[in-house]
Amino acid sequence: MSPGDTIVAPATPLGFSGVAVIRISGPKALLFAQKVTQKKKLKDRSATLVGFFNKKRERLDQTLITQFSAPASYTGEDMVEVSCHGNPVIVDGIVSTFLSCGARLADPGEFTYRAFINGKMDLVQAEGVSALIKAKTIESAKEQQKIINGELSNNINKLRRDIINLVSFLEYQMDISEENLSPKEQHEVSEKMQSLRKACLALSKTFVRGKMLNLGVTTVITGPPNVGKSSLLNTLCGENLAIVSAEPGTTRDVIKSELVIDGVPFVFLDTAGIRKARSPIEKEGVARAKKFKEKADLIIRVSDDPGAQHSTTSAQPCVLVVNKADLHEKKPKKPIIHISCKNKTGIEELILKIKKEMRLDSISSDLPLLSTQRQNTAIKLCSKNIKNALVLCKKSGFELELIAFELRSAIDALDVLLGKTTPEDIINNIFNNLCVGK
Amino acid sequence: MSPGDTIVAPATPLGFSGVAVIRISGPKALLFAQKVTQKKKLKDRSATLVGFFNKKRERLDQTLITQFSAPASYTGEDMVEVSCHGNPVIVDGIVSTFLSCGARLADPGEFTYRAFINGKMDLVQAEGVSALIKAKTIESAKEQQKIINGELSNNINKLRRDIINLVSFLEYQMDISEENLSPKEQHEVSEKMQSLRKACLALSKTFVRGKMLNLGVTTVITGPPNVGKSSLLNTLCGENLAIVSAEPGTTRDVIKSELVIDGVPFVFLDTAGIRKARSPIEKEGVARAKKFKEKADLIIRVSDDPGAQHSTTSAQPCVLVVNKADLHEKKPKKPIIHISCKNKTGIEELILKIKKEMRLDSISSDLPLLSTQRQNTAIKLCSKNIKNALVLCKKSGFELELIAFELRSAIDALDVLLGKTTPEDIINNIFNNLCVGK
Repeated sequence: MSPGDTIVAPATPLGFSGVAVIRISGPKALLFAQKVTQKKKLKDRSATLVGFFNKKRERLDQTLITQFSAPASYTGEDMVEVSCHGNPVIVDGIVSTFLSCGARLADPGEFTYRAFINGKMDLVQAEGVSALIKAKTIESAKEQQKIINGELSNNINKLRRDIINLVSFLEYQMDISEENLSPKEQHEVSEKMQSLRKACLALSKTFVRGKMLNLGVTTVITGPPNVGKSSLLNTLCGENLAIVSAEPGTTRDVIKSELVIDGVPFVFLDTAGIRKARSPIEKEGVARAKKFKEKADLIIRVSDDPGAQHSTTSAQPCVLVVNKADLHEKKPKKPIIHISCKNKTGIEELILKIKKEMRLDSISSDLPLLSTQRQNTAIKLCSKNIKNALVLCKKSGFELELIAFELRSAIDALDVLLGKTTPEDIINNIFNNLCVGK
Repeated sequence: MSPGDTIVAPATPLGFSGVAVIRISGPKALLFAQKVTQKKKLKDRSATLVGFFNKKRERLDQTLITQFSAPASYTGEDMVEVSCHGNPVIVDGIVSTFLSCGARLADPGEFTYRAFINGKMDLVQAEGVSALIKAKTIESAKEQQKIINGELSNNINKLRRDIINLVSFLEYQMDISEENLSPKEQHEVSEKMQSLRKACLALSKTFVRGKMLNLGVTTVITGPPNVGKSSLLNTLCGENLAIVSAEPGTTRDVIKSELVIDGVPFVFLDTAGIRKARSPIEKEGVARAKKFKEKADLIIRVSDDPGAQHSTTSAQPCVLVVNKADLHEKKPKKPIIHISCKNKTGIEELILKIKKEMRLDSISSDLPLLSTQRQNTAIKLCSKNIKNALVLCKKSGFELELIAFELRSAIDALDVLLGKTTPEDIINNIFNNLCVGK
């Protein structure tokens, strides 16, 4: 990601639509815009209707071009946005023309990376951009808006300042005095650390909901062949995706469908019935079913036997469902859910059970939500260092140097979180997770 | 399509991307933009970074908004473009907010329809917009650029003016004189009509290439089970889409892949092998295979028998291919193409044969290309009317009234083509073919 280059990428999804947008950013962005439009100069921030010409001076499209001079742009550099007709071949022609001018194709997330290195946002906000774009529900998007606007960063920065103030006080005491803190001062320092630790724990607690909103709940529907797993997927998600037939082994691929429950995006995966496979294609299907089951956040085990027993062998929350209620005289024992995909009965009860199993109702927070594993790990590390410092406070001696060392480690954790001292590979990982063109 | 409404729609494809664009057009567009941004007034054509708020005053996104006051906009009305983060739930939130302000969801192509009724383009140009957005190759896109810029319309308008001049002359003669035209005048009128007819025929001829560029060539790969149809699709298009196995009846669905040959988009369809099906799923596959074959522009019949005969039962051009050359000692008779998908031999020869069969090499034109069936039908109707007039010229009497009637019908055909007198259902059909948001 060399910052001296001028980078280009489509910013809208490929497809056939009214409009597509191509972005270009870097020291030569404005110059290239003049070349391709054969215009002397474009007016800043003004949408201008102009022909877009390739190197052979063939007109590729009539476009609306807006230029943003540094530093008042998304990246903080000179930027140009080209709005053309929404067609992949035109987008390709426009991108290729910029490449032939000397621009380079942007890496994933490179526009946002440049915003980060130019001080337009910190690393938590950059993660917010990534999560906002991937958000599956408006509830999730609103949470990420808060993060992009700096609410979470403000919380973290306040925590960081408080720890710095405390360390400064301790280091000042070490410098000016040979003696240790008074018992009153020791008590105050401990109290302060307790409250800092509480702040960390409160933040960390938000991750349960933040993770579900941001990453969704992967739910695997599993069970023997021909119990109605595909029927359940179709019924739950209201889409007729999976072919249903009386023949066992109909589903070979992993079929995916989505359903939003209380703002949380659930991804349901219908998999091959697990049995000794009768053909190489089915064998591959069964292997995939097992692999996806391991990665699930929630398992729905389907049976068609009203005498089925609830077994808890899986590491994840598991809901047992008995299908084909229309054929059964006997009901299964609670808490097993009895449904009929055919008659669409028991489905609401199943959704209530899923909500309960994932504790969707009981989680709420005034704080902005942590929403990536990295954020949660950093806050937990910070919390652990404060806890270590607290343990040292209780030991005889109240050794200021050791306590300060732990608190400095807590600050380090937050510096890594905010992007001040983050290792390059982690930074790359965050921006590579973004799409090309952002 | 009530023109008094203010309409809104996403203009970019749904998906997760850097940017998405929402468009709003109509008398209240600027007012609604003020509401959602909580700003007094936006500067015309100036990209302004503002928060976008829903009715509950919740901030949905940080957006870049540009307003275009009438008549200097795409539709010729007041318009606003909102550029937000590329996420379907945010796009949905923004569209919903405009709806709650009183806007209505735009019908497909309604923005372009408004451009048409406000005199920003004629119907041929509107068809160009539709075709440009769907263009599969840059060659096709460039042709549609010409149409949008009015090159085809200029040709048609010239033709129309020439016929009008001729009719005016004939009607003037009928008004001022009881006598018929002199033999010299009769000759000149005939000559003029000949040249008009030639112009029509020249335009009509461009449709062969225009159609292929615009609509592509649908090519169905057909033949008995297990001769390597799926292997051919994968080899031709360089994608590993269709599952290949030694088991006959592996392909049940219709698998689609694309390949551009000389700027013409070919869509290859791999279908189930045609045989007496052994299961309901295969039966459905075979039925689909037969249906797609009927609609094909080109058929590739695959066999694995080097003794296969070229039969010409199909209405379309058909190329016979014998696969598994690696297993054969004997070669099939020319012009049958001998290939081996396994060893990738004979594929270039097959593509040459396809080019020859579809006459890709021999078509070129300085004229803008007719590219829809409607355009071609109108030009042919115009041509036919002129021909009728010519026939009347040769009949004794040279009856001016009858000749003028035919020429007026020719003008009518062009008026319908340009959108001056087009029936409403045809107009609706053209704009409905466009995507929502254009």
